[in-house]
Amino acid sequence: MSYALTTTVPRPFATVLEQVRNALDDVGFGVLTEIDIQQTLKAKIGVDVPAQIILGACRPPLAHAALQAEPSIGLLLPCNVVVRALGAASTAVEAMDPQVMVGITENNGLEAVAAEAGTRLRTALDSLDDAPVTAAG
Amino acid sequence: MSYALTTTVPRPFATVLEQVRNALDDVGFGVLTEIDIQQTLKAKIGVDVPAQIILGACRPPLAHAALQAEPSIGLLLPCNVVVRALGAASTAVEAMDPQVMVGITENNGLEAVAAEAGTRLRTALDSLDDAPVTAAG
Repeated sequence: MSYALTTTVPRPFATVLEQVRNALDDVGFGVLTEIDIQQTLKAKIGVDVPAQIILGACRPPLAHAALQAEPSIGLLLPCNVVVRALGAASTAVEAMDPQVMVGITENNGLEAVAAEAGTRLRTALDSLDDAPVTAAG
Repeated sequence: MSYALTTTVPRPFATVLEQVRNALDDVGFGVLTEIDIQQTLKAKIGVDVPAQIILGACRPPLAHAALQAEPSIGLLLPCNVVVRALGAASTAVEAMDPQVMVGITENNGLEAVAAEAGTRLRTALDSLDDAPVTAAG
């Protein structure tokens, strides 16, 4: 099962992270949670991994529709968007393919929600290729 | 595909939420994120839903092992634990079955991690039946 929508952007991690935030906002997804994997693993178990942030992205009307169709779908919400450094000037951006929700639950009532979420997330990822290169905070 | 480990506890939401936090701590899972679904949907789109909280639970050594086996697994991290009110004195507690990670990725390298995470989460959910009833903050 394919579970990720992915793209690779030839720019540094911090720059791409900022672009991803803007791209998600542009397609109507808010970021509800944020986990700095690099920082967490360093702090908790002392290991070093490349920069990686998991953004928990949510579009409330879609989340509400999903919960109405499948009461336990909170287990797969929000929709994770991972930004991770592949190198100094190469960054992977991955979003959980919302079709995973349909596949795992075998609930066709989620299809419309998954299709709309997938279209929006693909648009966000596609926009990164054309995103202007700006300094990230 | 079964995707949830579940239990129903005959106690109010707030009480059970506190017990779940303690139970996760007891099995070595920290809570990295927390989403109040009821509050979020009310604030963002004005709809009323029963009390529901999504806890993003993580055991860093397991997360690290999972990331080494499957670089994109951040899309399915942390492990969501949902606490949601079914009624005034009945609360559902659900954890994403870590076997979902193996099923979706078709990566057998995740099996040991998923097995250990599953055992710990089942232990946490099982403990709720015997948890003392205490007032929650």
